[in-house]
Amino acid sequence: SSSDSMSPSKWIWDVWEFAKGDTNRVTFSLKVGLACLLVSLLILIRAPYQVFGTNTIWAIMTVAIMFEYTVGATFNRGFNRALGSLLAGIFAVVFMQIAMSSGHITEPYIIGLSIFLVGAITSFMKLWPSLVPYEYGFRVILLTYCLIIASGYRMGDPVRTAVDRLYSIAIGGLVAVLVNLLVFPIWAGEQLHKELVSHFDSVADSLEECVKKYLSDDGSEQPEFSKTVMDDFQDEPAYRKCRATLSSSAKLDSLANSARWEPPHGRFRHFFHPWAEYVNVGAVLRHCAYEVMALHGCLHSEIQAPFNLRCAFQSEILDATTQAAELLRSIGKDISNMKHGLRTSLLKRVHSSTERLQRSIDLHSYLLTSSHHLSTALSSNLIPSRDHSTDPDSKRVEPNAAHTLAPRVDSCHNTPKKQQRRQRSWPSIEVTDLQEDDIPRMSALESTTALSLATFTSLLIEFVARLDHLVEAVDKLARLAGFN
Amino acid sequence: SSSDSMSPSKWIWDVWEFAKGDTNRVTFSLKVGLACLLVSLLILIRAPYQVFGTNTIWAIMTVAIMFEYTVGATFNRGFNRALGSLLAGIFAVVFMQIAMSSGHITEPYIIGLSIFLVGAITSFMKLWPSLVPYEYGFRVILLTYCLIIASGYRMGDPVRTAVDRLYSIAIGGLVAVLVNLLVFPIWAGEQLHKELVSHFDSVADSLEECVKKYLSDDGSEQPEFSKTVMDDFQDEPAYRKCRATLSSSAKLDSLANSARWEPPHGRFRHFFHPWAEYVNVGAVLRHCAYEVMALHGCLHSEIQAPFNLRCAFQSEILDATTQAAELLRSIGKDISNMKHGLRTSLLKRVHSSTERLQRSIDLHSYLLTSSHHLSTALSSNLIPSRDHSTDPDSKRVEPNAAHTLAPRVDSCHNTPKKQQRRQRSWPSIEVTDLQEDDIPRMSALESTTALSLATFTSLLIEFVARLDHLVEAVDKLARLAGFN
Repeated sequence: SSSDSMSPSKWIWDVWEFAKGDTNRVTFSLKVGLACLLVSLLILIRAPYQVFGTNTIWAIMTVAIMFEYTVGATFNRGFNRALGSLLAGIFAVVFMQIAMSSGHITEPYIIGLSIFLVGAITSFMKLWPSLVPYEYGFRVILLTYCLIIASGYRMGDPVRTAVDRLYSIAIGGLVAVLVNLLVFPIWAGEQLHKELVSHFDSVADSLEECVKKYLSDDGSEQPEFSKTVMDDFQDEPAYRKCRATLSSSAKLDSLANSARWEPPHGRFRHFFHPWAEYVNVGAVLRHCAYEVMALHGCLHSEIQAPFNLRCAFQSEILDATTQAAELLRSIGKDISNMKHGLRTSLLKRVHSSTERLQRSIDLHSYLLTSSHHLSTALSSNLIPSRDHSTDPDSKRVEPNAAHTLAPRVDSCHNTPKKQQRRQRSWPSIEVTDLQEDDIPRMSALESTTALSLATFTSLLIEFVARLDHLVEAVDKLARLAGFN
Repeated sequence: SSSDSMSPSKWIWDVWEFAKGDTNRVTFSLKVGLACLLVSLLILIRAPYQVFGTNTIWAIMTVAIMFEYTVGATFNRGFNRALGSLLAGIFAVVFMQIAMSSGHITEPYIIGLSIFLVGAITSFMKLWPSLVPYEYGFRVILLTYCLIIASGYRMGDPVRTAVDRLYSIAIGGLVAVLVNLLVFPIWAGEQLHKELVSHFDSVADSLEECVKKYLSDDGSEQPEFSKTVMDDFQDEPAYRKCRATLSSSAKLDSLANSARWEPPHGRFRHFFHPWAEYVNVGAVLRHCAYEVMALHGCLHSEIQAPFNLRCAFQSEILDATTQAAELLRSIGKDISNMKHGLRTSLLKRVHSSTERLQRSIDLHSYLLTSSHHLSTALSSNLIPSRDHSTDPDSKRVEPNAAHTLAPRVDSCHNTPKKQQRRQRSWPSIEVTDLQEDDIPRMSALESTTALSLATFTSLLIEFVARLDHLVEAVDKLARLAGFN
């Protein structure tokens, strides 16, 4: 989206909006600049340069590589780097001693062999699934090992070289950690807390958006398939946020991982704050969000329920949706304020509205089944069903007989003309598509299109059923984290 | 899984299996070792060392950082690194000239300011969403800039320093590229091709697994919820593969991105092989896989259809599933062999079996609706429905009246006793859960549990409807890639 608008003022405006959207971004950038500046003082000022000499470049490198967004991540990465450097240093010294004690002629061969081995083994290990997160640590080992041993070979005294570099790396690491911790710290714990709360809101938004669209969509505009597949719904902002929630697993994990390294801070005044529970609540929330995605799948599915049928259950569906969304938002707000609210009454209201929806479908389920409107919408390229002629119950009706369905359906005020057209044109759509290329299209029985509404509602009901578990998980979090 | 089995022989066996599973892993590791060895010869042999001196460490660093798994990724990363180094070099020379021309006193201030600016600006830019993939490039710029300017300040002649280092980096890059390209090359294109084919198989496997489990599951064993949420189904290997397919978007993207950098090779004899179409087919396949995930959600949902109902439509569901899975596997095989097969007959068979399923549900839809079995399974904490007494059609039956449903249901041989028990105990489960903590549980009407079967079948039908688009996308790929 940024490539089609290259005017400088628009561009500056975008950057400004981006910075304002989360001021931590600016803080982070300035902190990196500050850390680089501090460490380069080791070279710019004469006194430290005379002590450390060219080894200062290791301090600079460490800062540039180690500085991460949050305090916890910097601690974590620093630990990786320290361990990697230390291991590489030990390997280097050991191999160097072996090589030197073996005599002048074999020395380069042993060094070459050791470089080959370290390269091959670290590369193999970082492919191992459970070690993939430490890919960076293995690169550090390989890099540091090669550098120490290669320059140690020509400069002599490898132990001295290794120790000097480790000092320098330690200074770089210290600068990175101190700047990150003391100058406007960005805490992974705080980020995790906010992230989780925002997911509650986006699931609630997405649920409401999806249901509203389903009930108001008269099916007149069939979206292009390519758009559907590319997962790009311009007019559904909440859907994208919900999809982001679904793929948030890695982000929550890494934030919780980082938060574990952080000391108590701000609102989180205890050691061992239950960060793992945040991840758990996130997982249960995702479990609910899967249903929202399935509802969204119904909205954009190939087989669509007739508009007047959707209309028939409109008020019950809307009611259940609103209650469920309200419950989600109230939970999110409580977590945000670190309050331990009792949600029994809200939960009961959600249940009773879902109950009403179930009963309503139960009573009007004849609308969803065949005896009232067996469709003639069978395209000619399909084998006739064996069962078709044997059933005495089925009678053929015209496809536009939608108005004869039931009083309840008729009571829906705005049965649109478009819908009638669409029902009639269902088979002809197949035919037009058919001529383009030789791929036969599947046709849907009208009763199946009615069952699509059953699918939608039962997914909604399942969503509510899963909310119980969400409330339970949040209660556990509240207990362990000492919300009050 | 590796932490609980620490015996060395088991461990060696695991490593051996891992290496045998994809021999490219071993090839890659040995290649990294070889590249490190080659570049360290620059130090181990006297002649090149006298030319390059300590700058050789830059060549080593470049190899360690740049060497990637596939040829395309190495090209791509090399390009990033080259551009990053070049930009950093230019910045460094320019700022150095400005600083030197400003006199001895202000020089360190200007250098310090420039380091601060470069650090802050690159850090800010790498947070910009569309630049996130180039995070590595920005780190290279910052690192190289600091190193050149900091050591250039003390050694004088920054242009000479910069040029010497760029030479050394170029040698390292050349070694990395040549070893990667000439020694058993691992092509990203080939990987992409195989990856896509494997996704077809896993979606087919997962579909069959899920449907089989749904039809054979008599509901006797309620899985623990925590297991369900943790997305960890030990007994469903294909499900994990399908989930991997859903999250494969990033992997396919990055492979296609790398493949674009590769010259024609092996089976892909043309320039501009349509790698983007692979990504597109992958997207349509994911679109189908979403339905499989929704089916899987039904399998593990809170509200379950009675076993005898599932039994009633067993043969139609199984038939449609088998046909759809066969179609998927045949497409996968054709892509694998780079053949352009006509799948009209297979597609027609899938359609007709789905058609049979639709008709069967259509004819027996009375099984799914209320007039035959309105449940009494209402827990006491729910508000009575307003509609309940006004409907003349509804009659109450005992919850264990499952056997009176219909001849078709009775024809299912093995209606298990467990199932009866479960139907009867549905409300009592709610009550037991209730006493543990104060969260009220949602109860499901039995008619809703029956609609759960409707949901399952209509998701299956939607899956088949989406297969049309998959066939279309694959046809386009076959045309563009010149399969025959």
